[in-house]
Amino acid sequence: MREHWIVADVMTTHVLTVDEETPFKEIVQHLADWRVSAVPVIDTHRRVLGVVSETDLLCKEQFQVAWKSRKRARRSSRKVHAKATGTKARELMTAPAITVHPEASLPAAARRMADHDVTRLIVVDDEGKLTGIVSRSDLIRVFLASDEELQRRVTRRIVRYALWDDPFTIHVEAHGGVVTLSGELELRSLVETTVRLTRTIDGVVDVVDNLRYAVDDTLLPPFHAAMS
Amino acid sequence: MREHWIVADVMTTHVLTVDEETPFKEIVQHLADWRVSAVPVIDTHRRVLGVVSETDLLCKEQFQVAWKSRKRARRSSRKVHAKATGTKARELMTAPAITVHPEASLPAAARRMADHDVTRLIVVDDEGKLTGIVSRSDLIRVFLASDEELQRRVTRRIVRYALWDDPFTIHVEAHGGVVTLSGELELRSLVETTVRLTRTIDGVVDVVDNLRYAVDDTLLPPFHAAMS
Repeated sequence: MREHWIVADVMTTHVLTVDEETPFKEIVQHLADWRVSAVPVIDTHRRVLGVVSETDLLCKEQFQVAWKSRKRARRSSRKVHAKATGTKARELMTAPAITVHPEASLPAAARRMADHDVTRLIVVDDEGKLTGIVSRSDLIRVFLASDEELQRRVTRRIVRYALWDDPFTIHVEAHGGVVTLSGELELRSLVETTVRLTRTIDGVVDVVDNLRYAVDDTLLPPFHAAMS
Repeated sequence: MREHWIVADVMTTHVLTVDEETPFKEIVQHLADWRVSAVPVIDTHRRVLGVVSETDLLCKEQFQVAWKSRKRARRSSRKVHAKATGTKARELMTAPAITVHPEASLPAAARRMADHDVTRLIVVDDEGKLTGIVSRSDLIRVFLASDEELQRRVTRRIVRYALWDDPFTIHVEAHGGVVTLSGELELRSLVETTVRLTRTIDGVVDVVDNLRYAVDDTLLPPFHAAMS
């Protein structure tokens, strides 16, 4: 297994799609049947043209209010208005789709969702062709790793990268995803690196730092300064 | 049945909840088990204190990137940062929850979701106590009404409110949620009212107006003007 999970590890590959001409009600029916909240709109080469999400479909319902209130109608954005009157995927979809590469890391995918304020990303290959969908729940699933698995991951990571010197002075314990590190290390800077590194491991909810150190090297002048 | 559906008609009443002390991983497990994207945080009186959603939980994953990049860490908002380090519902939740009354109309609920950019609303009674959750998919389900049912709704609505005079001159046909109105009415203003009214009916995707009129009353001076 890879050190860190990537989008390809957690994405859904069996993806429902529609074309530009798919009518409104058929899309609603698809979403209900498949229990998904969005569907990519693709061309005949499986290239992604856009996405129709529940949000796009709800414009129509929002707009029912507007028919009763002129004031609200003016407040609706032009985009919402256009979607409210749309009856085919082409008119309803949000384009371009917010996409991600299958080899992106999960934190990068999470950040991309947050930056673009979407609940899923369309996964496309180098040629822009649809390869999957990754949703927020797919990304969160990483935190479902068992405590035993987490202990293994943290220990392996620390051994492999940080503390090849003497890794077995550290005790790793996980409870509900919260990892407690205890034991003693030689240098204070190593303690900080170890804690930081542990936080980046998939599935780690929090790190409790009970590590001690023998020497506070952070008080020493930097190495290059001492050399000059 | 009511003329228009209200939130109470489509909401989920069997709602998973957590309290302020519920730990991060337990929340993730709940969401996965129940296949929901958010959970209300309630006090001992079932009053809603906030909501923990997948978005809140993903802050932790977003922030893994930040541990590697100081620049990004600075760019993260203080809120995202706080949630990224949170381990209990109290620290993770978004508060106050965006709520809606069980008797709100579906278009009003749709608009409230859009205004607050959320994917679900917490349904609370007059005392602020949790009574259900309504999601985007619940609101969209209204469009799944059969064409036969839609034809019945439109005809009934038109007969009852608009055209009590001679309703049977209008032919109503629905196909894929798109309602086509044909036939002849006396006044042009009545045609416009009828089309507008039909658009507001739950489940109507679009209205095709093939109505004709005998007299164009919109060219006449307004009634009160004629009277003065």
